[in-house]
Amino acid sequence: MKKQIVLLPGDGIGKEVMNSAKEVLTAIAEEYNHSFSFETHEIGGAAIDQYGTPLPETTVDACKQADAVLLGAVGGPKWDNNPSQLRPERGLLGIRKALDLYANLRPIKGFKNLLPASPLKEEVVCGSDLLIVRELTGGIYFGSPSERRENGQVVVDTLSYTRQEIERIIDKAFQAAQGRRGRLTSVDKANVLESSKMWREIVEEKKAQYPDVAVEHLLVDAAAMKLITNPSHFDVIVTENMFGDILSDEASVLTGSLGMLPSASLNEAGVGLYEPVHGSAPDIAGKGIANPTAMILSAALMLRYSFGLEDEAKIIEDAVQSVLDAGYHTADLRIAGGFQVGTAEMTKLIVDYI
Amino acid sequence: MKKQIVLLPGDGIGKEVMNSAKEVLTAIAEEYNHSFSFETHEIGGAAIDQYGTPLPETTVDACKQADAVLLGAVGGPKWDNNPSQLRPERGLLGIRKALDLYANLRPIKGFKNLLPASPLKEEVVCGSDLLIVRELTGGIYFGSPSERRENGQVVVDTLSYTRQEIERIIDKAFQAAQGRRGRLTSVDKANVLESSKMWREIVEEKKAQYPDVAVEHLLVDAAAMKLITNPSHFDVIVTENMFGDILSDEASVLTGSLGMLPSASLNEAGVGLYEPVHGSAPDIAGKGIANPTAMILSAALMLRYSFGLEDEAKIIEDAVQSVLDAGYHTADLRIAGGFQVGTAEMTKLIVDYI
Ligand SMILES: CC(C)[C@H](C(=O)O)[C@@H](O)C(=O)O
Ligand SMILES: CC(C)[C@H](C(=O)O)[C@@H](O)C(=O)O
Repeated sequence: MKKQIVLLPGDGIGKEVMNSAKEVLTAIAEEYNHSFSFETHEIGGAAIDQYGTPLPETTVDACKQADAVLLGAVGGPKWDNNPSQLRPERGLLGIRKALDLYANLRPIKGFKNLLPASPLKEEVVCGSDLLIVRELTGGIYFGSPSERRENGQVVVDTLSYTRQEIERIIDKAFQAAQGRRGRLTSVDKANVLESSKMWREIVEEKKAQYPDVAVEHLLVDAAAMKLITNPSHFDVIVTENMFGDILSDEASVLTGSLGMLPSASLNEAGVGLYEPVHGSAPDIAGKGIANPTAMILSAALMLRYSFGLEDEAKIIEDAVQSVLDAGYHTADLRIAGGFQVGTAEMTKLIVDYI
Repeated sequence: MKKQIVLLPGDGIGKEVMNSAKEVLTAIAEEYNHSFSFETHEIGGAAIDQYGTPLPETTVDACKQADAVLLGAVGGPKWDNNPSQLRPERGLLGIRKALDLYANLRPIKGFKNLLPASPLKEEVVCGSDLLIVRELTGGIYFGSPSERRENGQVVVDTLSYTRQEIERIIDKAFQAAQGRRGRLTSVDKANVLESSKMWREIVEEKKAQYPDVAVEHLLVDAAAMKLITNPSHFDVIVTENMFGDILSDEASVLTGSLGMLPSASLNEAGVGLYEPVHGSAPDIAGKGIANPTAMILSAALMLRYSFGLEDEAKIIEDAVQSVLDAGYHTADLRIAGGFQVGTAEMTKLIVDYI
């Protein structure tokens, strides 16, 4: 298989973990006789420094022509006080919209030997394995008007969705549930928001098409509680952009392995952008101690979702598991009786397994 | 002191726990020579059944004339499929707006001997003692337009705030921080929302007026994580209506004592509405096993905030602590080597202490 992959390392540890992902993909290509070509472009703070914009046209064009995109992370204190159009995260929002990456998938699964690092009691978190499907290109993130009025005395943001935008993300979530344990939790605030009422209606309309999926509705405040008190209740959660932002970050700390969590953002053409859930971690950037696993597992999601290479995705996931089982971990994690290693060594251990 | 208190028991266990609060207040009145008169009105499902509306005019009028209002809880499966204007929670939203209860205060503090019931590891949650100050009468809850458009192909909700609405809640939060440990965390989504940018600007403007308070800004997604990984980081958290709904419910399950948490909703005149954080618990209603503590502690907040009766508030809080220390608890809690009691007995134990 011949594939063209755009790498957007971004800022901070983004650059370091991207190198790791590239090494792993190179090993996969050799082992399975694929030809992956890589092209690196700038986004976020790095792009601001070099081109004066967080999302240069050349980056967008390259992504549009690619078979898939890997993103490291964006942001850092250097750009924190920039005006909003010159902030690194604008690059992220911009590329999501430019590629129409409406479906953000975040699988969250505890690694048995990392559970001691969870803030939750082991009996509460153990066995949890959930997937958050977040709408990523609509809602209050992109609605207009979003402005000051009456001489700065009033401010307004707009949460808006088209029926078609809601339908496609809900279809995606039903399909994801079919490929998992067949349970879907739709999260909304239907007792307050008109958009949530429409969201709930569409879930109800769609469920006849997916008779093998059991559906429940949960209010966002109740979901925020239940994620903590009973995370293993959930299989697939689907929700709109802002609720998804909050709940997926909340969920990401439950298993104690934020540094291990990948994500996929997909469009209708199947082109996807894959990135770790963690940020650019400016405090540890350049020290060679960042955990590359989330980025490597994001590359595995790319192989599975964008290229249909299930075996290759699986071997990467097995490699990570076996390296952890052998007790190796980076500085952000603890394994009793284990061995702490840096980014390069962790990567080499994973590559060796492959 | 002579005070007129309106009781809105509402639905489910609301009625049972309201009786407990009334008993406790009656004991306080006797002990401290106050005259509290009580007037009971309907809200929520009970009001729908009796008057065909979740918030009868008579209820609103009585609340407006009262010195303070106690609310039990609203809602239940009986009304779940009603059209939105005939749902119990409309009564709650309506009374908040009618009384202009813009400041919702939710203190969350672990009770040492209840921490084993927390989903969090004891070392993570221990020592946490925070206050969430939630804006309660603005934002996306009440913004307009909130409607379907283009033949139901588009839906819109509006998050809107006036400068004055943001200023008054931020002032309230700074003042609360002054009365506590002097730390304020303002939560927003300033990297995406215009309303959050204005919110953050106003916090920055105000902080010169409160030099004794240390302020930080936190994005809502990061706050959702940090509440779990490091709850004792926080003193006072201030945020807008929807973020406050989600974060305060998230925070309410951290200490394992949801049944113990009171809340206060205040307006500029100091008239307040006090209610437990928990809901109407239809599954256990009428069984005499509901935990009355959150309602009783809400009455204590009323004495403190609306009537300025600090000693009286304190003795109720001490009573609750000492009853717990003696090992008594209701069915929703566990205390190793403790004694399980019903609503009436729990109330009596607290009254006896007073
Ligand atoms: C950086 C920010 C705009 C972004 C978001 O809110 O979507 C981030 O929090 C995320 O979840 O990817
Ligand atoms: C019932 C509902 C409308 C309400 C809210 O969202 O404000 C509730 O969740 C609360 O927090 O008091």
